Amino acid sequence: MSLKIYFCGSIRAGRDDMGLYAKIIDHLKKYGKVLTEHVGKPDVEKSDDTINQDKFIHDRDMKWLNEADAGLVGAPDKLIHDSSIGWLDQADVLIAEVTKPSLGVGYEIGRAVAMNKPCLFLFRPESEYKLSAMISGVHDGERFKLKNYSEPEVYKIVDDYFETFKIQ
Amino acid sequence: MSLKIYFCGSIRAGRDDMGLYAKIIDHLKKYGKVLTEHVGKPDVEKSDDTINQDKFIHDRDMKWLNEADAGLVGAPDKLIHDSSIGWLDQADVLIAEVTKPSLGVGYEIGRAVAMNKPCLFLFRPESEYKLSAMISGVHDGERFKLKNYSEPEVYKIVDDYFETFKIQ
Repeated sequence: MSLKIYFCGSIRAGRDDMGLYAKIIDHLKKYGKVLTEHVGKPDVEKSDDTINQDKFIHDRDMKWLNEADAGLVGAPDKLIHDSSIGWLDQADVLIAEVTKPSLGVGYEIGRAVAMNKPCLFLFRPESEYKLSAMISGVHDGERFKLKNYSEPEVYKIVDDYFETFKIQ
Repeated sequence: MSLKIYFCGSIRAGRDDMGLYAKIIDHLKKYGKVLTEHVGKPDVEKSDDTINQDKFIHDRDMKWLNEADAGLVGAPDKLIHDSSIGWLDQADVLIAEVTKPSLGVGYEIGRAVAMNKPCLFLFRPESEYKLSAMISGVHDGERFKLKNYSEPEVYKIVDDYFETFKIQ
C-alpha cells in the first residue's frame, strides 16, 4: 500500500510533542508518503536547506518569496495555509495527534471532515488535556476514528488501522 | 439587522477567557441571535436549568438523554458535535475568539470555511500565544477576516465589521 498521508500535530500552539510526532511520522512511512513530514521537524518554521528537501515545501517557499517580493501582506501564512489545504486535498487519509490543543490541527480536521477524508485521531488520556467534544464527537468508528493510547501502543494502533484501510 | 451568529471560544482547552467571551456575546446580541450563547457561560458542560433556557440546548439535551438511554457509546460528545454543526449550518456568520489554542474552535472554523460562511477571527497579540498559520493564512480581507485587538477595542471592531456586513 502506498498512500498519501496528511499528518497533523501542533506547531505554533507548542512543540512539546514534536519528538513523538517525528516517531509517528517515521512509522507512517511504512504506508506511503507523509506529505506534512515537516510537522515532526524542529525547524518547521524556518525556511532553510533542511526542510527544502521536500519538493512541496521548496515550491511553497519559492511561491512565498515571490509573493513577499510582490508586497502581499501576510503572504507567508497564506501560502502555508494554501499549500497545506492543497496537500490535504491530495491526501488519501488524515492522521492527527490531538492531545495538545491546537487551532491549526482542529482547522485541518474540520477541512478534512468536510472533504469526507478518512481520519484517525490519536489522543493520550493520561495527559493534562481534555479532548474537545468536536473531535470525540465526530468519531463514528468507521470513516472518522478516535483512538486513545499511551505512547508504546501507538505503532500497533496505526498498524491495526491500516490493516483494514481501503482507499476511498 | 437580525442575524444568526455562531460564536466560538475555547471550552475544554481552558476557560481563562470565559468572561471576555460573555462580554463579546452580549455585544453581538445587538446584531441578532447568538446560537452558541453557552460558550460564555460558566456551566457550559453541565446539563442544568441555567442553560436549558436556550431551546436548542434543551433539545440537544433531550436528544442526548434519549441516546444515552439507548446505550450509544459516546453519545453526549456526538450530540454536542452534531448540534453544533447544525447551528453552524444555519448561521449567517461565524465570530471566533482565537487567542487561546483550541481544537474545537479550529474545527468549527475549518467547517465554516468549507461551507464558505463569512467569518471574523479576533486575536489578542499581547497574549502569550502565537496564532496558527491556518487561521492567519485563511484571512482574505473579505469573506474571512482576522482582526488583532486588545480588549477595549473589540466592541468597535465588531461594530465596524457589521456596519458593512451583508447576508450572503
